[in-house]
Parts: sequence; C-alpha cells; structure tokens
Amino acid sequence: MRRITAHAIPPASQPKNNALRFIPLGGCGEVGRSCYVYECGDDIVIVDMGLQWPDEDMPGIDYLIPNIEYLKPKKKNIRGIVITHGHYDHIGGIPHLLDKLGNPPIYATALTRGMILKRQEEFKFGAKPNIEVVTPESRVQLGAIEVSFFHVNHNIPDSVGVVLKTPGGTAVHTGDFKFDHSPVNERPADIGRLSEIGRQGVTLLVSESTNAEDPGHQISEADVQRSLEEIFKVAHGRIIAATFSSLLTRIQQLIWLSEKYGRKVVIEGFSMKQNVAVSQQLNYMSIKKGTLVDSKDLHRYPEEKITIICTGAQGEDRAVLMRIANNEHKMISLRPNDSIIFSSSVIPGNEATIQRLKNVLYKKAARIYHKASMDIHAGGHAKQEELKMMINLTEPKYLIPIHGNYFMLKLHTDLAEETGMPKQNLMIAEDGDIVSITDAGIRKEKEKAPNDYVMVDGLGVGDVKEVVLRDRQHLAEDGIFVIISLVDNASGKVRTSPDIISRGFIYLRESQDLLKEVRLLTRKVVEEVTVHGERPINWVHVKDELRERIGQFLFNKTRRRPMVLPVVIEV
Amino acid sequence: MRRITAHAIPPASQPKNNALRFIPLGGCGEVGRSCYVYECGDDIVIVDMGLQWPDEDMPGIDYLIPNIEYLKPKKKNIRGIVITHGHYDHIGGIPHLLDKLGNPPIYATALTRGMILKRQEEFKFGAKPNIEVVTPESRVQLGAIEVSFFHVNHNIPDSVGVVLKTPGGTAVHTGDFKFDHSPVNERPADIGRLSEIGRQGVTLLVSESTNAEDPGHQISEADVQRSLEEIFKVAHGRIIAATFSSLLTRIQQLIWLSEKYGRKVVIEGFSMKQNVAVSQQLNYMSIKKGTLVDSKDLHRYPEEKITIICTGAQGEDRAVLMRIANNEHKMISLRPNDSIIFSSSVIPGNEATIQRLKNVLYKKAARIYHKASMDIHAGGHAKQEELKMMINLTEPKYLIPIHGNYFMLKLHTDLAEETGMPKQNLMIAEDGDIVSITDAGIRKEKEKAPNDYVMVDGLGVGDVKEVVLRDRQHLAEDGIFVIISLVDNASGKVRTSPDIISRGFIYLRESQDLLKEVRLLTRKVVEEVTVHGERPINWVHVKDELRERIGQFLFNKTRRRPMVLPVVIEV
Repeated sequence: MRRITAHAIPPASQPKNNALRFIPLGGCGEVGRSCYVYECGDDIVIVDMGLQWPDEDMPGIDYLIPNIEYLKPKKKNIRGIVITHGHYDHIGGIPHLLDKLGNPPIYATALTRGMILKRQEEFKFGAKPNIEVVTPESRVQLGAIEVSFFHVNHNIPDSVGVVLKTPGGTAVHTGDFKFDHSPVNERPADIGRLSEIGRQGVTLLVSESTNAEDPGHQISEADVQRSLEEIFKVAHGRIIAATFSSLLTRIQQLIWLSEKYGRKVVIEGFSMKQNVAVSQQLNYMSIKKGTLVDSKDLHRYPEEKITIICTGAQGEDRAVLMRIANNEHKMISLRPNDSIIFSSSVIPGNEATIQRLKNVLYKKAARIYHKASMDIHAGGHAKQEELKMMINLTEPKYLIPIHGNYFMLKLHTDLAEETGMPKQNLMIAEDGDIVSITDAGIRKEKEKAPNDYVMVDGLGVGDVKEVVLRDRQHLAEDGIFVIISLVDNASGKVRTSPDIISRGFIYLRESQDLLKEVRLLTRKVVEEVTVHGERPINWVHVKDELRERIGQFLFNKTRRRPMVLPVVIEV
Repeated sequence: MRRITAHAIPPASQPKNNALRFIPLGGCGEVGRSCYVYECGDDIVIVDMGLQWPDEDMPGIDYLIPNIEYLKPKKKNIRGIVITHGHYDHIGGIPHLLDKLGNPPIYATALTRGMILKRQEEFKFGAKPNIEVVTPESRVQLGAIEVSFFHVNHNIPDSVGVVLKTPGGTAVHTGDFKFDHSPVNERPADIGRLSEIGRQGVTLLVSESTNAEDPGHQISEADVQRSLEEIFKVAHGRIIAATFSSLLTRIQQLIWLSEKYGRKVVIEGFSMKQNVAVSQQLNYMSIKKGTLVDSKDLHRYPEEKITIICTGAQGEDRAVLMRIANNEHKMISLRPNDSIIFSSSVIPGNEATIQRLKNVLYKKAARIYHKASMDIHAGGHAKQEELKMMINLTEPKYLIPIHGNYFMLKLHTDLAEETGMPKQNLMIAEDGDIVSITDAGIRKEKEKAPNDYVMVDGLGVGDVKEVVLRDRQHLAEDGIFVIISLVDNASGKVRTSPDIISRGFIYLRESQDLLKEVRLLTRKVVEEVTVHGERPINWVHVKDELRERIGQFLFNKTRRRPMVLPVVIEV
C-alpha cells in the first residue's frame, strides 16, 4: 500500500498509469510568469519559464518568478525546458531557476536562444544554459515524450507552439499566438500543420487567453504597416515612435518605413538596442547599411530625415520617451514639428501614467498618434475568433486555457463551449493545480504544487515575504515614527528628552508643538511602567504601551497612523 | 505710476478697464479639483470648489483641493460661489476653504445644496455655509456680475451651466454636461436657451473637456435603461449592481427596473445610502414604499426578487463589492446565480484593480456585465460632437477648455478649430494662469496665481509637503533601516552592540548574518571618527559616515537602498 507522507508534496507522487499531468507553476491566474509542467510517468517537460511584473501593491519588487518547489524533488525527471518565444514573460525566470533545476537542456528557436543568452549576460552567477536550437520542423525525443513544434504569429519573430506526444495522449501548447494572414517579416501561422495535428488526434489543448475578452480578430500587421505609412507620408519633422523593446516586428516595420521615406533611424533605450543587435546578428531583422545612426550625430540631419524609435510607450519614469519629454535626455529634446507615435497596447494599471506623459507631449510636439485614434498597433495575442479557430483546427478532447487572469481563462472556456466542446472537458486550472488526464477524464488532484509568490528584489529571490510588503505599504501610507528613550536602569527615570525620528508622516519643521507633546507623553508613559510599575522592569510592556499610546495620540491629532517604533535603551 | 511690489501677487493687481479675468485654481490640467475664478473690476465670482483624488505617486494622501492663495488678499471682493452640481470634484473643497474665504454666499440648485450640506456634516469645524437655492430660471446680481443658469444633462440631477454677464463681456461656463435627448428622470439639456444666449453674444465659452478624446456622442440614458432591462429580463438570481455612490441617475434607473420586475432593493455603501436619502428627501428620486429593504432582511426574499445596488465598481479595497466578493461583508456573500453589473466608467489607473476584482467575481457568480460588453453605462460628459455643438450654439468669441488633463484641453481646442474658431481665440490655460480678455484680445498675464498642490491627509491640510511624499515613496520602495549606537562621550567607544530596527527592507529573521555584519561595521565606522578622529567629536560627521557606508554596504549585499537612519546617542 502506498503510504502518504506528511510532506506537502509526497515525494512519491507520480502520475499513475501513463496519466498525463499538467501543472501550471505560473501563468494561470495572471498574464506573465509563464511556466507549465507536462509530466507523464517519469518524464517531465517544462514549457516556458517567465517573469511577471509586480502589481502596484508590491512596492519595490522587481518581478515575480514561478514557484518551482514542485519540481525540486523531481529534478532527475526533468528531460528539458522548451521555450516558445523570446519575451521576458516566457524566458525571464531562467537565470534565477536553471541552476536549481539541475541545468536541464533548453530547446528554443534561434532568435529565442539569442534573447535568452543576451539576458543571461546580466547574470554573472549560475550555470551557462545549454540551448539546443530547434525549428518548426524539429522533433525532439525527451524521455517518453516526443516534442515537435509549429509556427505561430506573435509580435516577435520565431515564435512557436509545441506538440507533446506522450504515452498519456497528445498535448498542443499554443504559446502566445495570433493568426495573421499577412504578417510582416515572417510567414502566416501554420494553419495546415495545425489542422494535420488535429486530424492525428489531440487529447489536450493548452491555449493562451490574454485577449479572450476581445471579440473579433486581431488586425493584421500589414494593416498596421499601412497606417504607420500614413504618418510617414505627412510628417514634416522628426518621427518619434515609442514601443516595447521586445516588439521586434514593430521596430522592423518602422525601420523599413524610415528607409522608404529616406529617414535615418536612431534606436534609443538599452534593451531595445540590445534586442535589435541580437536580431540583426541572427538575420531576423533587415536593416540597410547606413540606416542606423547614433543620437549624437542627429544634428547632421534635417528634422524630416530622422526617425527615433525608443522605449517608454507605457509612460515609464526612466524610459527614453519620458526622459525626452521631460528634457532629461542627453541628446534629444522635443521640437514643435515632432510627430509622436505610441505603438503598443496599454498594460492595465498604466493608464494614468500614460495620461501624464501625454500631457507633456501635447504641450511640446506637433502631432500625437496612438492606438485609439489609428490602427498603428496590433497586439500579439489571439482574439475571440482566433481562439475558436485554434480549437476548431486542433479538435482537442480537453481544453485548459492559460496565460490570463482568472476571468480571461473563464471567458476562454465560454468560447470553447460556443464551439461545441462539452463543459466537462473544459478545465480552468490555477497556478499550483495538478491536473490529471486519464481514460476516466480530466480532473484536479487533491494535492497541490506550492504556489506562493516568489519575488525578486535586487539580489534577493524569495526573501521578501508578505510581512515585508505589508510594512512597505504601511510605510507608504503614513510614514514612520521612531521614539528613542534612554531609561535609567536603577531609578526607571527617563534620561534627557526622548529622541524622535520621523519620515513620511508630517512635515517636522512645522510640527514642533506636536513633537514636544509626544516627548512629554513618552516620558509619562515610560515612567508609569518603569518607575511605578512592577520590578524587574517589564521592558516589553514599556514598548507595547508606547506603541499603543503614542500611536493613538498621533492619530487623534492628525488622523494618520504612522508606524510607531519605540526604542527603549537601558543605561 | 503704478508700483509693482515684490509680492508674488501684487496686492493691487486688479483687472484693468473692465477687463474680464479668468483664473483656474484647479481643473485645468486635471480632471477634478474644479475651481474657477471670474474677476471683473472689484468683483469676483467663483464657480465650483472641488476636490481631486490623488495620483498613485501620492501615497497616503486623501485628496487635493484648490490652492486659494490668489483669493486671500481679495477676500472682500468675493461676491459669491456658484456650484454647478453636487459631485465631489465640484463641491469637495468647500468644507476646507469656505472659512478662509470669509464664508461668502453659495448659490446652488436644491439637490446640489443637499449634497453640500450632507458633506458638511462630516466636518465639525468651520462656518455653516450660507446656500441660496437657485433654479435654471434664477438670476443673481453679484456686484457688477449678473449670474444666470441653464439646465444641462449629467449623471446627477439638477446640474446647471452658468452665464456670467460682466462689464467685460459675457462668459458661459458649462460645468460638467452632456446633451441627452432622452434622459432619465429629467428634461433634456436646454438647447433653446443656449442658442438664445448665443444670439445675445458670448465673449467667452469655458467648456469642460473630460471626454474630448472620444469621438461621437454620449449614448442616451434611455439606451442605458434598455440595456439594463435586458439583464433584468434574464437574471435568475440576485442582481448586484455596482456604480459610483454619486451616480444618482443610474441608481434611479436600477430602482425603477427593480420595481418593474418585482425586486426589493438593498442600497449598500455609506455614501450611497446618504446620497439616496438626500435625493429622496428633496424629491429627486422616486422610490415606491416598500421597495427599499435592509440587508439584514434579505433572507426573507427569494434570490430572483433581490437587487443589491452598491459601491465598489472601481475595485476599491474597502468598498462594498470588494467586501462581498471577498466574503468580508456582514450580510452578503456571492452566490452562483448572481448577476453582477458594473455600471460605471473606469477611472484611469484603476484597470488592474478592477481586473483583480473580476477574477474573484468570475469564480463565484453566474454572469458579469460590464460596459465593454453592453451599453449599461453612459458617462456624464460631452463627447466630441457634443462639445462642437456647445460651441456652435453659444457662438463664443473666445474659448477656454477646462476640466481635463492638458492633452484633453488641447484636443478640445482642435475641435474648436474644426468648428471654424480662429486659433488665436483659443486659449489653453493651466491652474494658476491669469487670463485677461480685453478689447485687444485674450492673453495670459505675466504674473501667476500660486498653484502648488494643497494636499489633505487626515486632519492636515497642506502640511504634507513634497519632501514627505518623497520619503513615503522611498520607504515604500525599499523600507527603512535604523541603527542606534550608544557612544561613550569620553572614550568615543561604542557601548554594547548597536541596535537595529528595520521594516520593509528584508525579512529580518532570515538575515541574521547580514545584521551581524552591519553591527560590526557600525562599530568600526563610529569609532573611526569618535576614537581616532578630531576632538571634540564631530557627531554630524559620525552620522553622515554611517548613513553613507551602511547604505553602500546594504546596497552591495542586496541591491536595495533602504532609507538608512543612524541614531548616535552620547552617554
């Protein structure tokens, strides 16, 4: 009889009888942090290993990465990591996690490999990744799992979906995708191959859900190109186009248009420059000799012969566009004839920041173009009709939607129902759920993989816990108030006037009266315990009383609740 | 000859020769904090006195109010404050500012008066406002300025625009408005009267810009009502509708539909309850006897006979809908048959929060309806075609757009150009600008009214300065690190091991080694100065060294920069 141990994850927990297990370690419940485990018998294949930008209630956090506790006791079973494309939400966890997984081989297309290696340069520590280059035509045997690929469209070239043929059935994992029938700089997604895969029988479709809320189809990159060209036709001055540094397709379009209209191109932004360099080197971007110039040479060209492609379309404080707008860029400041192009979608939560950026731009530039006013951006993700098309092509028995907040996953299952899939074959999984597919159907195991947040902050990985975040939030709201009292150990009397240090609470210079009252109250509270209270002096009680009563006093006076930290020093 | 004094505002600064002055003290550069000064000779009329919700880089701040420094030396000239409608961004500054302006009379429609007085109850201090009730038919002589009104549509009843006939010309101030030809619970905006005002000659149109970015017309409240009714027709369980507490029009629609479909109504949320009570009392809301029930009696009715109208459509943490979703509401939790209606626009910046709320709702409720999927909300603000219509009706010589971020104001002037207004007659003013209109045209004065932020935080008004906010942001990013060392005054030696208090920086329990190193370093740094350095001991130098070197040490170890506060105590 199998003994269940007391561990959170029974070390012996293995899929039974060739059951196919699917375990999302990130990406099911959020857009980002993609990391999906396919497990069959003793074989594990991981698809993607991304990062996620923090929510606004995680101040100071750089990003989150997948929680891989589930994999640690199973290290020896990991046959490989397959990466679908080179965006940070799919590759960003690699430098932090590869070592901990025993540095298994990575399978990725050439450009994706380039992006992974480029990022790796930022990390001195850890093992060098072993990356085997694959193409959409490759087939890789990973234990009992045969992995093959299919070409999809996204807004970075060389994106693939993954087919995993396992003894427990065939899974199709879409990665980020859209169907573009007139893409730029690449072929349309391989619909023929998808339909062939479907004909061969698909047990499980694991499909992305980022745009499950949006009806219709994504617009084609060819249309985006046409709209962008309208701007190039009429612009009298410089064109400044802001987009994501990893939106390589868009950057290519802007470069081609610049070449067509005789403009030199300046690429601004460290990561964008790097990405362009990698793509160029690997022949994923075609740029004529002499097109790219350095920003310090800009003065040599007339305004109407210049395109600046830069980061900062989300209004990020330190990104290039914001620095240009605020006159903080070394070489570039805004001019009245500039045309500004925002070519990106808005990340939810950034709307207010972008509005502030727009305020500055509208003051100083001639024309501002954005997605709402013109089709100058297409997202990289399938909209509702494309999601249904993916289901119809692959004809899966089961569907698990991924890459989305819960409500997007839910809406994706609604779409699947519309295509005729039976409700009991649709499964919404969340990070840490262990989903098993057997002949008996699809179900969630009772046990769960650990799924608490792993936050990266500076050099620390996972060392910022909930309590630290709560403290940061508290500090941000009302600041901190430290009171330091020296107490004579023998008499219990407070020596000299207590010291007060406060930050973020109140403007101290204008609050001298308040501070005076706090000092008096501190002495009173301390001596109530130390002079008149029990012996030996209960120092914990002194501090508790101070925290409570000074906190209450400050609240009564100000209706604010700074974090009160009493320090009592015996001398 | 007139002497210019060195004051920021020359006390003698008065409009010359019947010039009409317009000075925005809030609302030109943001949506919110509406406060506009009309000045002609010795007479000042103020229109609106609102508050503004803080940006996300103002942690802990409750709201901002207009900066009224310009008005203080001119108190005696203030003839009255005219309020256009009862929303907080137009009335919320009153309790804080009325006293400082010498409690001038307020002119407002009956419902607006009710809203002002209701809010006043939260403030024990200060003068009781003197509010004279006006109607769209009223005429009030305020010094040399004759003030009259016109009815407009908005999403609170009893909204008016203002006509100010001054010796320097006639100004039309729209307030928040839209043109609804089939509004709910009120008449359409008074187009006839506007056209008549236009025929009589308008010097200056001051018109709101909130939706200047949106093409077309706002949808009619009658259409909203129809869409909402579709939901009532099919809902099997409870209907839970979330909206703004001040969106009285929407609340009325939901109540009528509930009555039509035999549902009892629970109003949840303190401010919403209050607003409904005020409106009912003043006959601005019609509710049948027995329709409203208390949430504690909900269990008496079957699910399909219940409507819950509540606050929290923006995903606010402490608002009702979030508490219901998180099972933190005393009487109400979600049920599988619930239909949830989000009937409000999304305030920019709140998108991510709303997504998180939606995740919870999609898990627990049957159906979620929102603006993107159905016409169940109409904003209260004129879209582009309506803004142009306002210009065409009033035929002003000059236009100043208000109530908007800078880019919205700019877009509004673009619209005005489309209607044929000459560019030199369009003026974008920002908070603090002093705009003069004379026979010579429209221009900005060189002097400016003080316009720095006035923030309300708890009981403090204006006592949170930039430095406090910067500290809060710093604290939120990387926390605080306090080091307390006792130094022997005579020998300069550090007594006992230094104390460390840290919050929001790192999880201390797991960082004992780091703390040990900091203690050693502290002793070393202190004694370098106190034992080996100059005499008498330079205590400022000790602290500077500690701040610098401990800060650098922590950064090297963690790549984080907590606020380092050294405390050195001589004993």
